Amino acid sequence: MRLKKQVHKFITSNPEFLKFIYGLIILNVVAIILESYKGIRTQYSDVFYVFELISVIIFTIEYILRFWTAEYEKYKKPLFGSEKLQFVISKYGIIDLVAILPFYLPLLFALDLRVLRILRLFRLLRIFKLGRLSKSLKTINSVLKETRGDLAISVFVAFVLLILSSTLMYYFESDVQPDKFENIGQALWWAVATLTTVGYGDVYPVTGIGKLLSGVVALIGIGFVALPTSILSSAFVERVQKNRKKKSIEQCKCPNCGEEFEIEV
Amino acid sequence: MRLKKQVHKFITSNPEFLKFIYGLIILNVVAIILESYKGIRTQYSDVFYVFELISVIIFTIEYILRFWTAEYEKYKKPLFGSEKLQFVISKYGIIDLVAILPFYLPLLFALDLRVLRILRLFRLLRIFKLGRLSKSLKTINSVLKETRGDLAISVFVAFVLLILSSTLMYYFESDVQPDKFENIGQALWWAVATLTTVGYGDVYPVTGIGKLLSGVVALIGIGFVALPTSILSSAFVERVQKNRKKKSIEQCKCPNCGEEFEIEV
Amino acid sequence: MRLKKQVHKFITSNPEFLKFIYGLIILNVVAIILESYKGIRTQYSDVFYVFELISVIIFTIEYILRFWTAEYEKYKKPLFGSEKLQFVISKYGIIDLVAILPFYLPLLFALDLRVLRILRLFRLLRIFKLGRLSKSLKTINSVLKETRGDLAISVFVAFVLLILSSTLMYYFESDVQPDKFENIGQALWWAVATLTTVGYGDVYPVTGIGKLLSGVVALIGIGFVALPTSILSSAFVERVQKNRKKKSIEQCKCPNCGEEFEIEV
Amino acid sequence: MRLKKQVHKFITSNPEFLKFIYGLIILNVVAIILESYKGIRTQYSDVFYVFELISVIIFTIEYILRFWTAEYEKYKKPLFGSEKLQFVISKYGIIDLVAILPFYLPLLFALDLRVLRILRLFRLLRIFKLGRLSKSLKTINSVLKETRGDLAISVFVAFVLLILSSTLMYYFESDVQPDKFENIGQALWWAVATLTTVGYGDVYPVTGIGKLLSGVVALIGIGFVALPTSILSSAFVERVQKNRKKKSIEQCKCPNCGEEFEIEV
Repeated sequence: MRLKKQVHKFITSNPEFLKFIYGLIILNVVAIILESYKGIRTQYSDVFYVFELISVIIFTIEYILRFWTAEYEKYKKPLFGSEKLQFVISKYGIIDLVAILPFYLPLLFALDLRVLRILRLFRLLRIFKLGRLSKSLKTINSVLKETRGDLAISVFVAFVLLILSSTLMYYFESDVQPDKFENIGQALWWAVATLTTVGYGDVYPVTGIGKLLSGVVALIGIGFVALPTSILSSAFVERVQKNRKKKSIEQCKCPNCGEEFEIEV
Repeated sequence: MRLKKQVHKFITSNPEFLKFIYGLIILNVVAIILESYKGIRTQYSDVFYVFELISVIIFTIEYILRFWTAEYEKYKKPLFGSEKLQFVISKYGIIDLVAILPFYLPLLFALDLRVLRILRLFRLLRIFKLGRLSKSLKTINSVLKETRGDLAISVFVAFVLLILSSTLMYYFESDVQPDKFENIGQALWWAVATLTTVGYGDVYPVTGIGKLLSGVVALIGIGFVALPTSILSSAFVERVQKNRKKKSIEQCKCPNCGEEFEIEV
Repeated sequence: MRLKKQVHKFITSNPEFLKFIYGLIILNVVAIILESYKGIRTQYSDVFYVFELISVIIFTIEYILRFWTAEYEKYKKPLFGSEKLQFVISKYGIIDLVAILPFYLPLLFALDLRVLRILRLFRLLRIFKLGRLSKSLKTINSVLKETRGDLAISVFVAFVLLILSSTLMYYFESDVQPDKFENIGQALWWAVATLTTVGYGDVYPVTGIGKLLSGVVALIGIGFVALPTSILSSAFVERVQKNRKKKSIEQCKCPNCGEEFEIEV
Repeated sequence: MRLKKQVHKFITSNPEFLKFIYGLIILNVVAIILESYKGIRTQYSDVFYVFELISVIIFTIEYILRFWTAEYEKYKKPLFGSEKLQFVISKYGIIDLVAILPFYLPLLFALDLRVLRILRLFRLLRIFKLGRLSKSLKTINSVLKETRGDLAISVFVAFVLLILSSTLMYYFESDVQPDKFENIGQALWWAVATLTTVGYGDVYPVTGIGKLLSGVVALIGIGFVALPTSILSSAFVERVQKNRKKKSIEQCKCPNCGEEFEIEV
């Protein structure tokens, strides 16, 4: 029983072990990127295979140990009273499983390897567990949560705008450019590129009324940036001011008797 | 008379009925999008026709019921003292009528069906009546109203800038690229794409002075984003602080009798 | 002498006259835009000539009347003690002169008419004198003035960044794309399009290191938007809070003696 | 010894000398830009050589004088107790050395002149030492430092997003467009152009799922602008409010002797 506790402490808190795991994750991502280069992939296919094998073994062992020692995780409400089950359905439990499963599945079933490889990317998501990141992430997260309602409205209005403008554009342009504005789905691609001001330039209106609509959508795009920025800004400003309000305790020295004390301002 | 009241309550407040209507609206939008795909349109033309027929019948019945029960709407100042007339000229009354009319008009007159179909999109606008959206929409709306003056100035300055820069660009570029900068209208298309930083890349200057002007306009475009964002931000910040301030309690001393008491500000 | 005063009052304050002048300015701008369309220009050349003639005559008379009645303008420090001279070198005095001069110059000298026509656009600038705009413009102006120092720094840093990145890009890309990155001037065109996130797509790097630099510049471009926006935001927030601070006088009623009085909060 | 002090004062504080040096730096940058034009470079190659020679001599003398008089710089903790060494490894010491070294190195070794020329650009960085800029730069700098943590998170999240989306895009598009999405490096180029909303238009998805991902990334790009803008805004607002607060005077009562007095907070 004491061994289990020590193992749990080691895999969750030992700084050397965590550095090793995060290092391995980053190396995995680098490997995925390098593997995409044809020349490198064909020349070092063995190296990539061995590295993947070793990585999966390590991640599998880590997953098993986490599962085994799950009872030392402090879950508020474990599923069916079992911490082990709770671990399996927890966010990082799923991420870790999805990241190693692609290696084992082809051993059991005949599957398309290509799609499965993408799942390896899930390893990258573990990085958000990093302790150092968590404080700033929490601030940003709580601001996002606070402004959820207002931001959702902005996104919803943007969505309605996208549907409306792409349908209109389809009616305006499909006769003149049937290959580019073939259907509303294609027009939606134009609408997103314009509203976000990306403007790839592969699809753009050529008719007068189409250009007018495009200009209006682009100008609204500016407001589409301004609105969420403003909502977030005000939430950040409020948070900063609240924090200051709580903290501001001032040092005081009495000019009469020299006593030093603190006041809250 | 009691039936009328119950009908009014049903069509305006019954959650199941409202879910049905909003669901039907979304299905209509999906149908419009799917219909734009040629393959789907030709294969399922009957399905689309029947669905459109059923939708129009339902929306028509709903419109008639709303008209019939309009006297239970609480209008502040009904037109000519008649709630029915007021309903017809109200925002959502017009939207609902425009959304169903395109189906009936061709039965009476010979008309281009294409243009009329676009009017079906008006159904989508009804979504903004959704109760859940209304609170956040009100906040955003009131902030937009408050900053209306300053925002209008930004838009006006942008408009003058667009006219000036496109006229200048027309004079600079029309000799070198007569097909792209054919007239000031074309140059305006360039100006909007640049000021909003969309930059499709179908029209861009090639002369040195044209490029200089384009660079200046693009840089001003940054400010064009910064200004409305800042105006909106400050309004949002003010609103948040006002809401918080409501709870502050101030110390008061009556100058007449010297009584000390507290007021909420 | 009384006539002069009345004339001055009429041309500066009479709402009908001002509406007429601003209407004429807008018609002039519309004429410039329409004239740029070849078909319209050739067909209605007479109409455009007559309209231009009438416009110039009206603006000339107005300019002369303004000059004649300049002594009723309240200048703080007229040039050489003469209000007439002060008017000639005042902002709107110059704008008005430049806007009518292009018509008279070709009568005296042989000049390129093309360039002179652009000067007619100066008439548009008079619109900023419009009274209604002035209040919001003043707020925006004073905020811009307040943050002048910080904004100038942003612009200066952006300028240094543009020079640095375009010089680097020239060294990286000029060998591979000698036609697109011919010289640092061309590279500067790329740098502006990237930093402002316009991205026309006529010039872009193709080498690996060029793409890396382009990515970094584009990412910095985000900050380039964020910084002035933030500086302006904080200035607007401060202004709003100052305004509220001055105003907040609260009504109080003593619960003891019923005396009503005001306190400042 | 007194001469040394006077020389130090001259090269660091004499306004005429500083104007001369900054003027020379700007002329150097202008020369680098002009030299990139082939026509100018070939015609005035002698002028450029002589100007470079004179510049390097002046900068070298200045560097030697700075080194010689380094003991009058007030370093907090000079390296090995030697101000001279501290100067050599100081920020501007390195910048100044790197800016002149490229001229001398080829005299000693056989080196690629091209790369070395880029180093001349380092001279431009000295401009940030300019006194006038320093106050605003300090404000901006301290705000950037304060928000370092939150900004780093934004950048980190953006980085993870770039890796994830470019890997996904590589899997989606590499079959259809093998030349454009050849490897994840190429896909990263697309991802940066989209997330920053630059959108050159040289690389864009053509498959349905690729367009969907592209749209999502572009929309997230909006948030990517909004988040750092908001973080910076709140920090600027806080700074402005702190500055104003400094003047506030708080009432204090000593808990020891009961004396009442005021403190400035």
